[in-house]
Amino acid sequence: MSDTQSVAAELLREDKEGAVYLTLNRPDKFNTLSESLLDALQHELDNIASDPSVRCVVIGANGRGFCAGHDLRQMRAHPDHDYYQGLFRRCSRVMQGLVNLPVPVIARVQGMATAAGCQLVASCDLAIAARSATFGVSGINVGLFCSTPAVALSRNINAKRAFDMLVTADFIDADTAMGWGLLSGVAEDSDLDAAVAEKVEVILSKSPAAVRFGKTMFYRQLQMPLADAYELAGAVMADNMMSPDAGEGIDAFLEKRKPTWEQPGR
Amino acid sequence: MSDTQSVAAELLREDKEGAVYLTLNRPDKFNTLSESLLDALQHELDNIASDPSVRCVVIGANGRGFCAGHDLRQMRAHPDHDYYQGLFRRCSRVMQGLVNLPVPVIARVQGMATAAGCQLVASCDLAIAARSATFGVSGINVGLFCSTPAVALSRNINAKRAFDMLVTADFIDADTAMGWGLLSGVAEDSDLDAAVAEKVEVILSKSPAAVRFGKTMFYRQLQMPLADAYELAGAVMADNMMSPDAGEGIDAFLEKRKPTWEQPGR
Amino acid sequence: MSDTQSVAAELLREDKEGAVYLTLNRPDKFNTLSESLLDALQHELDNIASDPSVRCVVIGANGRGFCAGHDLRQMRAHPDHDYYQGLFRRCSRVMQGLVNLPVPVIARVQGMATAAGCQLVASCDLAIAARSATFGVSGINVGLFCSTPAVALSRNINAKRAFDMLVTADFIDADTAMGWGLLSGVAEDSDLDAAVAEKVEVILSKSPAAVRFGKTMFYRQLQMPLADAYELAGAVMADNMMSPDAGEGIDAFLEKRKPTWEQPGR
Repeated sequence: MSDTQSVAAELLREDKEGAVYLTLNRPDKFNTLSESLLDALQHELDNIASDPSVRCVVIGANGRGFCAGHDLRQMRAHPDHDYYQGLFRRCSRVMQGLVNLPVPVIARVQGMATAAGCQLVASCDLAIAARSATFGVSGINVGLFCSTPAVALSRNINAKRAFDMLVTADFIDADTAMGWGLLSGVAEDSDLDAAVAEKVEVILSKSPAAVRFGKTMFYRQLQMPLADAYELAGAVMADNMMSPDAGEGIDAFLEKRKPTWEQPGR
Repeated sequence: MSDTQSVAAELLREDKEGAVYLTLNRPDKFNTLSESLLDALQHELDNIASDPSVRCVVIGANGRGFCAGHDLRQMRAHPDHDYYQGLFRRCSRVMQGLVNLPVPVIARVQGMATAAGCQLVASCDLAIAARSATFGVSGINVGLFCSTPAVALSRNINAKRAFDMLVTADFIDADTAMGWGLLSGVAEDSDLDAAVAEKVEVILSKSPAAVRFGKTMFYRQLQMPLADAYELAGAVMADNMMSPDAGEGIDAFLEKRKPTWEQPGR
Repeated sequence: MSDTQSVAAELLREDKEGAVYLTLNRPDKFNTLSESLLDALQHELDNIASDPSVRCVVIGANGRGFCAGHDLRQMRAHPDHDYYQGLFRRCSRVMQGLVNLPVPVIARVQGMATAAGCQLVASCDLAIAARSATFGVSGINVGLFCSTPAVALSRNINAKRAFDMLVTADFIDADTAMGWGLLSGVAEDSDLDAAVAEKVEVILSKSPAAVRFGKTMFYRQLQMPLADAYELAGAVMADNMMSPDAGEGIDAFLEKRKPTWEQPGR
């Protein structure tokens, strides 16, 4: 029923009925995104992107905090412009990989989500946090404005709120993050796994094909002028209508019975 | 004073002092957007667009629900890609027609607004709902991701909230929709018509010319980079300043009297 | 410690430890943006943009209200399309000057912020208002839709809310403006200066270089597709990492001591 494998010490992967659980596993380092952890994430995202059996991804983390951003010690050890540009490009590729993945990604957040850790939350399609979780983009405190995190954050929350967080390094709590649209759900700390499991279950109950049509279209249309967005969405929806699942789903609805979805890659 | 005409059985039109009330009239079908209803809507939008006497449009619906989206039975009867692409293009043209209309459009929402019905609410400039109204994009439940509704919804509410609704098919109530920016107002069910009438009255009290300058500019500038948006808005505002109503309005303000607006097409 | 100079009767400037306080000073005219006040603002923004010692700007106003928008009497005295286009271009240049300034700008708002006054609030990076402050774009009441204010407002708050304010001329209070994202903070009227001073102090405590990297990048990336935004942000962040302050900041963090920032232009 369950299939656990350690991709690398720093990233764990567990597969359960079409859902992939990726767990940042540098708890003693607050799960900072070292080069090797970024590589492990990229590797898994590439695998998932080409695996038709995957239907949902959860990104969580071990330890007291979700993710404290980049590994400052490692960065400071390479005082080189090309190194930094390469590192941020690598990290940005992971973040865009989440957006471009053909299936929904849920962040499961406990403790602090800081800088690129907050960006990771913002880059997921959905995010559920423990009530005690906090969110900040505090690079400014070490003389480094969180520029790449700003890209994801400012596409999740209002510009004035994002800029305030970026320039003051103030942290917000989970309820504020929920009110601002950074989160899809807040759960009592002890109920976090149950809340995530519930969301996963809902997604797994839907047509895998339809979810993929939607995820692929959603962010592309967001960047387009209205007429182009409608042209894309209409074309995708026509493709979706021609898929067996839409026929089955509509027939089931009209016949007042439960639909049976195709399960690709099984 | 009032001029009622039945454009077609499926869509009713009533004209009252510059306001046009369009009413979806397939109550036994939850006002699903059949091909003929879409055509009737397009026909009326075209008429309104070229009629200088119209100053405001209200879109409401008869029966227990506002609109349940597309007519699934009709869609299922035409399992053809070209048909679907054509249908979604037609529907998208109606939705963009609301945005491109030179006068404000208010949605008057009772009961459920589902899929393209929710898109209709999102596509209006303003929307007032009964407290008991609910909103969802639940196509995913029949294996059809609400891709074209997503275009309008994601231009009204936060991306994470929109994606959550699209992938879970969860409905939100009117107060939540108000908090998220999908609505301009919520009224007790028994006060819905009064609340809509009040908003219409406010709009009718303004300069028709100035409202048209604004509506035409608003969505165009939203899609532009900041400098281009300012260039457009400045040009429109200079045109607006040269209109008789701006002169009259400013003179009346300076003279502390009520202005008298030009009433085109009367 | 303090350096007060009167740029012109209509605009006051005070410099305090890297912060520039600009004060609209036409209290008997509700600080309307006359041609000469716009020129004075542009002049100061140009000075600030080229002054490496400035680290933060506060825009406030004397008298009972913040700013009532354009000077309608002056506008009405020039019934000429070229004049209006030139005036709006001048005003839009000031507003974009705030966005393009390399340091954060905070609006300090008391009383009413109307039309271009509301636009001024929306154009600042941060805005703190007295609880009794109100916000409106009420040009429609004089037959002049607030088209240029709409550009800034609709980049701060939800489209339906912005359009409603523009077409109804309704004012919102400070708590509503805060809930909608137009403000970064609301203070009791008697605490307004303290709240602004606290925000200024926070910004002055950060690395001047890092703040400038961030402000310059933030609005540019917001207008870009995701991939381009990440490319820009990554390049800026690599430059930021090569700056002495990032090295000092990270070293200080790793050594658990307070960093010492470079103070350009001192």
